[in-house]
Amino acid sequence: MNDYRIAAIPGDGIGNEVLPEGIRVLEAAGKRFGLSFTFDHFDWSCEHYAKHGRMMPEGGLDLIRKHHAIFLGAVGFPGVPDHVSLWGLLIPIRRDFNQYVNLRPCRVLQGMKSPLAGRGPDDIDFYVVRENVEGEYSEIGGRMFRGTEHETAMQESIFTRRGTDRVMRYAFELARKRAKKHVTSATKSNGIVHTMPFWDERFAAMKANYPDIRADQFHIDILTAHFVQHPDWFDVVVGSNLFGDILSDLGPAVAGSIGIAPSANINPEREFPSMFEPVHGSAPDIAGKGIANPIGQIWSGAMMLEHLGHKDAADAVVRAIEVALADPKARTRDLGGSANTVECGRIIAEAV
Amino acid sequence: MNDYRIAAIPGDGIGNEVLPEGIRVLEAAGKRFGLSFTFDHFDWSCEHYAKHGRMMPEGGLDLIRKHHAIFLGAVGFPGVPDHVSLWGLLIPIRRDFNQYVNLRPCRVLQGMKSPLAGRGPDDIDFYVVRENVEGEYSEIGGRMFRGTEHETAMQESIFTRRGTDRVMRYAFELARKRAKKHVTSATKSNGIVHTMPFWDERFAAMKANYPDIRADQFHIDILTAHFVQHPDWFDVVVGSNLFGDILSDLGPAVAGSIGIAPSANINPEREFPSMFEPVHGSAPDIAGKGIANPIGQIWSGAMMLEHLGHKDAADAVVRAIEVALADPKARTRDLGGSANTVECGRIIAEAV
Ligand SMILES: CC(C)[C@H](C(=O)O)[C@@H](O)C(=O)O
Ligand SMILES: CC(C)[C@H](C(=O)O)[C@@H](O)C(=O)O
Repeated sequence: MNDYRIAAIPGDGIGNEVLPEGIRVLEAAGKRFGLSFTFDHFDWSCEHYAKHGRMMPEGGLDLIRKHHAIFLGAVGFPGVPDHVSLWGLLIPIRRDFNQYVNLRPCRVLQGMKSPLAGRGPDDIDFYVVRENVEGEYSEIGGRMFRGTEHETAMQESIFTRRGTDRVMRYAFELARKRAKKHVTSATKSNGIVHTMPFWDERFAAMKANYPDIRADQFHIDILTAHFVQHPDWFDVVVGSNLFGDILSDLGPAVAGSIGIAPSANINPEREFPSMFEPVHGSAPDIAGKGIANPIGQIWSGAMMLEHLGHKDAADAVVRAIEVALADPKARTRDLGGSANTVECGRIIAEAV
Repeated sequence: MNDYRIAAIPGDGIGNEVLPEGIRVLEAAGKRFGLSFTFDHFDWSCEHYAKHGRMMPEGGLDLIRKHHAIFLGAVGFPGVPDHVSLWGLLIPIRRDFNQYVNLRPCRVLQGMKSPLAGRGPDDIDFYVVRENVEGEYSEIGGRMFRGTEHETAMQESIFTRRGTDRVMRYAFELARKRAKKHVTSATKSNGIVHTMPFWDERFAAMKANYPDIRADQFHIDILTAHFVQHPDWFDVVVGSNLFGDILSDLGPAVAGSIGIAPSANINPEREFPSMFEPVHGSAPDIAGKGIANPIGQIWSGAMMLEHLGHKDAADAVVRAIEVALADPKARTRDLGGSANTVECGRIIAEAV
């Protein structure tokens, strides 16, 4: 069963430029490792919204529900408010397909440089495991006294035991497969009085099941400081939807890889397709110029290969990225090279 | 009117060791600049809680309501849950005295080193202005189905127009006094759908009053990345209670000053006393050994002097700190020196 049907959603801006390179590299990896991919394209985007008043057609999710995975470019474009574009496409996919884990590697790839003095690949190599469907991201809330002096906006954060336990379990299982066997919980139980003490209780309960894993926790404020001062302390860091969102940008930033970082939105039970997308956005300022860096998309493709059970192929793609990063002719301008998007993608595909 | 009555609350752990050094330096500055201070001591702390079941006596706040300022050490000790100790002392002071601004400088002092490669005092010099009394820190919320599979914890974030506008106004006024005249807003209006779009609207409305100030905004996730990659971009950064909390630990961390950073909880209208406290906690692991670094407390004293209208005295204290930082005999162990808490405090007092 090495035939995969993939829903490809380029989305907006540079998503249209980097996604084809991600596909090119997946096909190269398929050739080498005996996998075949069929890509079905969906034009769901802000352009779609402009034409049809919706980011995707009604019932759109049914069209991709049976695919083996979703390969996404980037969502969002000036003219459509972010909370419209994202809550109309990205977030419904995450939620309807129960992709309750958002996974992001924070690593210094060979050929990249951390902005931290004296830190290299050996110091920074951890994962952020983010809860991806509940918590602080909720639609519950609203406003009172709109437009007056007394205007008040409210938003409810909602943490369930089921939602909290399952993402923590994922983090501990991931740590079990790694050398350091260490899970860190991001909390704020000294400031956020209802949800975070609950989060801590569930973390304590979960860690009791994993005596082989070292477990600790930090408040989110000092944790961001530790990412900068002691990135070598971390192995697997688990956080709520909001804290995980923050840490999974900060982590790649300290690793020097924010422009090329990948992410996976995972439904661990595989009842639904998981989604793979670069961390970067649609970059309207450089869209259409053919100069965007496709590595975030390609690395996301590697995460997809690993999720589909082909770790050897995933590793080959990451190695090919490292080969390209060492070569100024393969690097795009943001990394001080001279390649355009397609050249960079081709070199990586060949290296695979 | 240069006679000041200060409420001194050492609190817990190393608070008891660093607060006297803060006082020593304030007295030295008083001598030089013709100010006199009377310190009234209050033993409100986790020890107080252990004896009396409360962090401070009933009606405690009335005892310090008329003071010119509050000088606090650190709150929290093992045995008393953080959310008890903090919500029983620190947070009521912030709220009852309407200290709606939490102000923290992020600077590389002479003699300190940023963990970022190639970054020094010229690159990192900004303030975080944090909303300090509402937002994500609320007691509204609770739990359902406690102890069952269906357990759910909820917490309400509450943003008022009054609360949002006034902290933003403070940020713009502060920027007006600085060279770069630049305010950055921390937001997350693409993920947090009710409160953050409201925050953005108020920011847009406020900036219209300040055509002389450059204003921009970033989502909190990428903003933390920019703190690491581009700390030189920032001048005054305004954030909600939670975002400001995170940024005001991350900022000092990128400046290399997290162990010595000061903070001010300010009631700009001066209806109530403002409170000055180091960013570090009570450090139970080193408490009682006399080795804690008192610079965070002393620098907080400098912020108090500035708040009381004595910028010259405040500058003299910061310069004295820099003199001490250059001298290994004045530095405490955490900074690779040999001084104990009292020695470090004395050298700074003399340098003033
Ligand atoms: C101790 C805690 C409640 C507090 C906060 O989050 O406000 C601290 O982190 C701070 O920044 O003063
Ligand atoms: C675009 C936005 C809603 C999103 C998030 O906060 O989840 C993004 O920052 C991410 O991390 O995928």
